[in-house]
Amino acid sequence: MVDAVRMKKPAVHKHTPAGGAPTAPHTADEAQARAAAAHTDEPRIDIPQVTDLLLGTWAETRREAREMIKNPDFWRIEGQPMPEHRDRVLTQLKLLVEAGGSRRAFPKEFGGLEDNGANIAGFEELVLADPSLQIKSGVQWGLFGSAVYQLGTQKHWDAWLSDIIDLSLPGAFAMTETGHGSDVAAIGTTATYDPQTEEFVIHTPFRGAWKDYLGNAALHGKAATVFAQLITGGVNYGVHCFFVPIRDDEGAFLPGVGGEDDGYKGGLNGIDNGRLHFDQVRVPRFNLLDRYGQVAADGSYTSDIPSPGRRFFTMLGALVQGRVSLDGASTTGAALALDIAITYANQRRQFDSGAGTPEVVLLDYGKHQRRLLPRLATVYAQAFAHDVFLRKFDGVFSGRADTPTEREDLETLAAALKPLSTWNALDTIQECREACGGSGFLAENRLVGLHADLDVYVTFEGDNNILLQLVGKRLLSDYAKQFKGKDAATVARIAARQTAGDLFHGAGLRRLGQAVGDLGSTARSVERGLREDQQHELLAGRVQQMIADIAGRLRPASKLSPADAAGLFNANQAELIEAARAHGELLQWEAFTDALATVQDAGTRHVLTWLRDLFGLSLIEKHLAWYIINGRLSTQRAAAVSSYIDRLCTRLRPHAQDLVDAWGFEPEHVRAPIALGAEQERQDEARAYFAQLAASGQAPTPEKKIKKS
Amino acid sequence: MVDAVRMKKPAVHKHTPAGGAPTAPHTADEAQARAAAAHTDEPRIDIPQVTDLLLGTWAETRREAREMIKNPDFWRIEGQPMPEHRDRVLTQLKLLVEAGGSRRAFPKEFGGLEDNGANIAGFEELVLADPSLQIKSGVQWGLFGSAVYQLGTQKHWDAWLSDIIDLSLPGAFAMTETGHGSDVAAIGTTATYDPQTEEFVIHTPFRGAWKDYLGNAALHGKAATVFAQLITGGVNYGVHCFFVPIRDDEGAFLPGVGGEDDGYKGGLNGIDNGRLHFDQVRVPRFNLLDRYGQVAADGSYTSDIPSPGRRFFTMLGALVQGRVSLDGASTTGAALALDIAITYANQRRQFDSGAGTPEVVLLDYGKHQRRLLPRLATVYAQAFAHDVFLRKFDGVFSGRADTPTEREDLETLAAALKPLSTWNALDTIQECREACGGSGFLAENRLVGLHADLDVYVTFEGDNNILLQLVGKRLLSDYAKQFKGKDAATVARIAARQTAGDLFHGAGLRRLGQAVGDLGSTARSVERGLREDQQHELLAGRVQQMIADIAGRLRPASKLSPADAAGLFNANQAELIEAARAHGELLQWEAFTDALATVQDAGTRHVLTWLRDLFGLSLIEKHLAWYIINGRLSTQRAAAVSSYIDRLCTRLRPHAQDLVDAWGFEPEHVRAPIALGAEQERQDEARAYFAQLAASGQAPTPEKKIKKS
Repeated sequence: MVDAVRMKKPAVHKHTPAGGAPTAPHTADEAQARAAAAHTDEPRIDIPQVTDLLLGTWAETRREAREMIKNPDFWRIEGQPMPEHRDRVLTQLKLLVEAGGSRRAFPKEFGGLEDNGANIAGFEELVLADPSLQIKSGVQWGLFGSAVYQLGTQKHWDAWLSDIIDLSLPGAFAMTETGHGSDVAAIGTTATYDPQTEEFVIHTPFRGAWKDYLGNAALHGKAATVFAQLITGGVNYGVHCFFVPIRDDEGAFLPGVGGEDDGYKGGLNGIDNGRLHFDQVRVPRFNLLDRYGQVAADGSYTSDIPSPGRRFFTMLGALVQGRVSLDGASTTGAALALDIAITYANQRRQFDSGAGTPEVVLLDYGKHQRRLLPRLATVYAQAFAHDVFLRKFDGVFSGRADTPTEREDLETLAAALKPLSTWNALDTIQECREACGGSGFLAENRLVGLHADLDVYVTFEGDNNILLQLVGKRLLSDYAKQFKGKDAATVARIAARQTAGDLFHGAGLRRLGQAVGDLGSTARSVERGLREDQQHELLAGRVQQMIADIAGRLRPASKLSPADAAGLFNANQAELIEAARAHGELLQWEAFTDALATVQDAGTRHVLTWLRDLFGLSLIEKHLAWYIINGRLSTQRAAAVSSYIDRLCTRLRPHAQDLVDAWGFEPEHVRAPIALGAEQERQDEARAYFAQLAASGQAPTPEKKIKKS
Repeated sequence: MVDAVRMKKPAVHKHTPAGGAPTAPHTADEAQARAAAAHTDEPRIDIPQVTDLLLGTWAETRREAREMIKNPDFWRIEGQPMPEHRDRVLTQLKLLVEAGGSRRAFPKEFGGLEDNGANIAGFEELVLADPSLQIKSGVQWGLFGSAVYQLGTQKHWDAWLSDIIDLSLPGAFAMTETGHGSDVAAIGTTATYDPQTEEFVIHTPFRGAWKDYLGNAALHGKAATVFAQLITGGVNYGVHCFFVPIRDDEGAFLPGVGGEDDGYKGGLNGIDNGRLHFDQVRVPRFNLLDRYGQVAADGSYTSDIPSPGRRFFTMLGALVQGRVSLDGASTTGAALALDIAITYANQRRQFDSGAGTPEVVLLDYGKHQRRLLPRLATVYAQAFAHDVFLRKFDGVFSGRADTPTEREDLETLAAALKPLSTWNALDTIQECREACGGSGFLAENRLVGLHADLDVYVTFEGDNNILLQLVGKRLLSDYAKQFKGKDAATVARIAARQTAGDLFHGAGLRRLGQAVGDLGSTARSVERGLREDQQHELLAGRVQQMIADIAGRLRPASKLSPADAAGLFNANQAELIEAARAHGELLQWEAFTDALATVQDAGTRHVLTWLRDLFGLSLIEKHLAWYIINGRLSTQRAAAVSSYIDRLCTRLRPHAQDLVDAWGFEPEHVRAPIALGAEQERQDEARAYFAQLAASGQAPTPEKKIKKS
């Protein structure tokens, strides 16, 4: 099925023989490359098997979603003006409802499927149609709907969930304020309980407390889940969420509610982001979404979670799914960009090699391989890590594995992976755009639009640097736990013995196989690169040592004044974030390696092992100075890392098209003309023209040849 | 003058005392910081002096251009639909003509000023108004007009220059084809001379030979300077340029001419990029722009430059000014982004430090400093390098220093600097956008638009990787020259003795002051960082050794088959490009250092020296593994580089606002509300609200405090 549709793309670089004119000059070296690849010793991947692997646990839902969005009504129209784009995306949301796409996460009594993993998987694929569609869906069902469902109780579900699911009640998720994004606990909006009327008074005390950047706020939202400081009996019980109607049926703001359009943004202009403010707006006591904190008619406050801090983080944690879906959608977006750029690089030619041969296809250039192949390896790693992440999410939210520890681990995983995948998407899409030159800058070839739309993924749903800092703090606290109450000698003994697996019990690190000293004692392994266990040792050892080093530097903090302690932490902030990033990279590497272990087909395993090695070695190359300075790699071995990466690129080059084809994108998902045959046609036509000219005897003589004669 | 207007910006973080309410809580730490900075021992920059330094040799023209674009008619309207944007930019070009902005480079007999340096300087500043304006101006006068002027002769000037200068003859520069961008020599369009009619027949033989991505081609161009293979008497004399009318006065294509609109692009949508193709279009022999090659009535070809290759590169070299202006405009664009992000970072607060203090301004975070300050240092380096570059350009094009060597050096400089500054602009603008969070994603705050518009700068006017490869080849050939005709023993002796200054005579490298062995023998200099001469030694030594290493690896090429030799070169391509990048970085560092030497004011020199050190050390940190592996830095010294950068960031932090203020951008150039007081107002209002609430005794009690009691 997938293969049949893909045949619309030129087949020359696929594993099947070329369908084009076999005598065209450009097929000669390709035929040779294919012949080499087809040699019995040369492994090939089994494309459909790899597609299954990449689609992961919820492959079926992903396939359904991809089938649905083959309908052109779901496609982004490049350059469409904002007002029309917003209308279009609203219509697409309605189509999604009709197709049953909005109900997967919700309870069965409201027509839902209670399938959290499938829900996220399905939404992620929408990025291929239009990222605005993905994110506006996320606003409606993943944030607004999810707030009602996760933070509310049965009475709220009965009141609103059906209308939310079928989009008759579009809503905004009003958490962020102009003045506070990352620091949600400090928002300024207040919800003061009035026991006289049994109402909450929602109020915006100053401009910085306006709710801001909210999808559905500028135009379509009829209600909002508003986060505000809950004040009752003169006490501030911290941030809670309230259901607040904002517009009447004609779309006019209700009394006391006001707002503004955020206007044009860098991307996602199909979403009507805007601001909201409230002037003493009264909502019934009923409208407090009271799963984690309740206010009785008399104004008394109760909660199952006595700690205000833990209660706050529990509420935020209930909304982790946004981060999950950004991790997946960024990965899919980056993979699409690579599909476009690598397909083009296999067809586009520029410059002859100086050896009298035909012009060279871009992907045969060493630099072009270096630009695209390590990024392809990274996107594979992200896909496998995302499936691990999504399974953990599903475990927690299905209730199958819903413990405080699992929730905490899930949040750490989200905070570690979302930054890496969203940043990498921007980096990869940009490199792909540049690798396609001028044609990459045309909107029709998708890359610039993908970059513009995915740009904000790195700062919303948790700013990437803030998320990584959270991961870093978790790593530090896990590290500190083991030393608790132990004397200095014991600490030293533990430190000497410890492995990352011991340290970070909850965060996915496996036990290290061998001590650092074992690493690379023979010249032979320089030749062979770094083995799997050596890569793991290096990557895990780096996280461990960075955390231990930072912990050591922070140790004096307990004896300092609060201000000096804060200063000491601040001096280590950049490195703590770097350590968290290293931790995320390790998780991705481990996920790739675990996925490899499940592959049965020998050829597939062989090629994917090269790809995993390319990912691992690229990470090590990126941090090479650290490995040398910290005695983890000798300078001799370090010097070999780059040449090993070069060799891996050479090995993987003949497989590059297979590896992007394995993502299973069909022409309706790709849509970029340069990756759907336009470039190949132009190359074929040009070559045919010159061949015919030469055959005709009419070709002009090059000036150089006259000079020689 | 500049200062008077800048006062519209909140003055709290400037060197003058704050004007705001002195009792507002947020001024306390600022007052302290200012007090520290005002201490007699603490150097400050003299802002107007630094502005002069940054504006460089053609400061007067830059000031005039900035004054002109204070007129809102020149400003980009964020989110304006493409058709209206295109109209607007055309109108802006007319305003520019009225203001005399289009004639600076042209001959006096046509009303010009024959001032090449000022011409480029003036155009570069237009990026502050709208990059589409900058680039469309570049198309009309820097490319189309310049082709007529630089490649044509008096008769062509008489025919067309006046109309080009006053925009009554808008034109396209038709060099690039869909099939050939970087490899101009291989374009497919033909211009075949017909001696019967004394005409050239311009023809597009296949789709890949359509001219593409041409500004002015979709709508406004009436003529084009078309690059085509000149064929006469059955001989192809290579690429030459022809003046070809394309549209009549009603805007309809002339017979035989066709085209297409390139449609929406990733940015620069104020420019009507499009495609052109020609079906046997006849133009008079007159229309060959024949400065470098002439065809007589009988069809015989003559040229002062016998070598076809050298003739081709001479023609291309005459059009170097595009690269010059991109280097400057990228620098200005990146500086604007830093002005916005650093001003915001000095006003925006998020999270308290955990020490009971007020919320912290973003720029006080260690990570935020690390994100923005090294980029600020880089933009300073770029500005100084650009002035060197522009002076060299002016020397060559004014005829004052127009020798083949100077021209070759100018092109190498262009190929080295344009890639670095255009890439750095994207990197810097993106980091600034992220550093401003959600507000950075709003179009009104400029950053996303700047990124979108400047995106294509990295691949047009010479793809950055291709340009760097040219630089690499030049470095290799300079390297090889010194060994010519010498035996192996002599070569070894030279290699042992050589310094970068000896090697690369034409490319701006100065003589190295000391041998590598001298470097850092005392622990004391670890403490003090790396001195100027040590930084230079490291940066220059790296270029030198990389080139020597690559040359060594390429040596066997002469004994290989052409195909194997090409393969060997290809295997070294990525590293050659890296060596060229290192060369460009060195040139920037040297320009910064030379600029420092001209500074008289002690405080200014002190602070700018820190900034230069930050630039140098950041480069060294980026390539740290290379320095260790190649024995240039001990692991101990290498480990100290990062902490020295941290210390420099801490030292420079109080000067960050001064250093962006010194760019001299006025509110009409900045235009981003978050950098013009909107954020500071919100912060002031919020703090006043909480202060008043506290004073009123009505503030709710935090839940935590009740629990404790």
